[in-house]
Amino acid sequence: MYYVGIDVGGTNLKAGVVDEQGRIISKVDCPTQVERGHEAVVENMAKLALQAIEKAGVPMDEVKSIGVGIPGIQDPRTGRVPFCTNLGWHDVPVVELIQKVIDKPVYVDNDATVATLAENVAGVSAGAKSSVFLTLGTGVGGGVVIGGKVYSGANGVGSELGHMITVAGGELCTCGNRGCWERYASATALIRMGKEAAEKHPESILNGVEKITARVVIDAARKGDAAALEAFDQYTEHLAVGMVNIINFIDPEIIAVGGGVSGAGEFLLKPVREKLAKKIFYKAMPYARVELATLGNDAGIIGAAMLGK
Amino acid sequence: MYYVGIDVGGTNLKAGVVDEQGRIISKVDCPTQVERGHEAVVENMAKLALQAIEKAGVPMDEVKSIGVGIPGIQDPRTGRVPFCTNLGWHDVPVVELIQKVIDKPVYVDNDATVATLAENVAGVSAGAKSSVFLTLGTGVGGGVVIGGKVYSGANGVGSELGHMITVAGGELCTCGNRGCWERYASATALIRMGKEAAEKHPESILNGVEKITARVVIDAARKGDAAALEAFDQYTEHLAVGMVNIINFIDPEIIAVGGGVSGAGEFLLKPVREKLAKKIFYKAMPYARVELATLGNDAGIIGAAMLGK
Repeated sequence: MYYVGIDVGGTNLKAGVVDEQGRIISKVDCPTQVERGHEAVVENMAKLALQAIEKAGVPMDEVKSIGVGIPGIQDPRTGRVPFCTNLGWHDVPVVELIQKVIDKPVYVDNDATVATLAENVAGVSAGAKSSVFLTLGTGVGGGVVIGGKVYSGANGVGSELGHMITVAGGELCTCGNRGCWERYASATALIRMGKEAAEKHPESILNGVEKITARVVIDAARKGDAAALEAFDQYTEHLAVGMVNIINFIDPEIIAVGGGVSGAGEFLLKPVREKLAKKIFYKAMPYARVELATLGNDAGIIGAAMLGK
Repeated sequence: MYYVGIDVGGTNLKAGVVDEQGRIISKVDCPTQVERGHEAVVENMAKLALQAIEKAGVPMDEVKSIGVGIPGIQDPRTGRVPFCTNLGWHDVPVVELIQKVIDKPVYVDNDATVATLAENVAGVSAGAKSSVFLTLGTGVGGGVVIGGKVYSGANGVGSELGHMITVAGGELCTCGNRGCWERYASATALIRMGKEAAEKHPESILNGVEKITARVVIDAARKGDAAALEAFDQYTEHLAVGMVNIINFIDPEIIAVGGGVSGAGEFLLKPVREKLAKKIFYKAMPYARVELATLGNDAGIIGAAMLGK
């Protein structure tokens, strides 16, 4: 059997046909155009799914299900999506709207959860009974695998790891709380730390850059720029703090790191692992490996598809 | 069948025979006398188990197993207890030593994990598929139930909720890190907050007390003492922060609160629930109930016994 995965982003919609092993057979995309309203967008998602099926050359009766990864959650009580902040959606019946176009089972889950599932089926954490997946991007997304399955909790509101408070009373978060981890561990945080460090170091190469991005800070740190190194050290410290919390809480086999900042690779993970070793509670016991996610941008399609498996 | 539970504390050893429903049939105890060394203590634990069986009047072949709750962890790789700080144990083969005296299967787990199991079988979270149990005492202990079973993680190092960092860079913890939740949510923390608030309020009744305990602070807060209320408000704020982290992470059905501070009952839970409602991420969705644990001191025996069920 084959599975369709739809990855709903604020900028682009992507759909693909995926096989039992989590391999992508076909892939198509189009702009999301959020401003058209949710009905048009969801209809487009369904049409994109049909395109992907056609491109794959797979007969309809070999397609088992349609899976959708959204930047929000589905209410398991109603099957509707109560809200997606960056899509401007409120109480959207995604399953119903897609089934108007395609008569297949439709599954919807959070995009970070879906990426977690992808890595767990076909990526770095394949075969692990327990894992935590982190995306270090504009915010920090998280997914939790327990007993080999993606775990979203009793009410579907779990795995919001970016909103774990690690600095009570700290930076104000978009969620209204202060000191959420994503204020310290996202690409956005690294940029803020880079800007702050640059102000204290007039000689920093960061001061000569038109726009400071996470990549700019990382590249400057690689070159040994003192301000960038200071920011990067602060960043990896906070990353390690959140990871210690993850380990002290559910002790997964592996913590997989994806998202923009993970592009820094071992330059990022090496200091994080070193700091983790110092912070870990049971120092004589084994604990989670910290590894880079391997599926990159395809994780959204693969994981959404695997929702129906 | 019947199950023996042994609750190993720094001051007392307790043992009991428990039935299939988690009801205590008999209960015995004796001083731990840690200074005698681990061999004598473990031998004593086994003898206490035999006493409990005799007192219950249960024939030996109806006893299925011996369970032990320790203030530490067992290494699942070796079956030994690598260390129990407040017992002064290092690498103790608890299972082997007990089986020298009683030829039954022996199970060992962390005391907070064991109390979690007890509440899950016979207490406030009975029947819940997922729950988190917290003991607010000298430190903060935690236990996690997922899929109806106590979850200790891939390496047995999970559910150390007291060592989740909620105030990065904050108060120094016994574990070596700064800002662990138990520095802000334990009885010890409430005492510290009470003392600090009393210093700022010379008129506080706390200043007339010989020894400030958690109970003293709570009683003064109930009476409307401004310093005690300030400390209590700070305390419940930090309690809510950690609970938000628990919900945003694994979204349990219920958070059960036990340990000394939980003696404050609804006076404690009411402000915590109010603060939680403001901090929760998905405000339109249901989330964990926060309830008082119901088994009290018996949770140690019941839960240890249930390890063999």
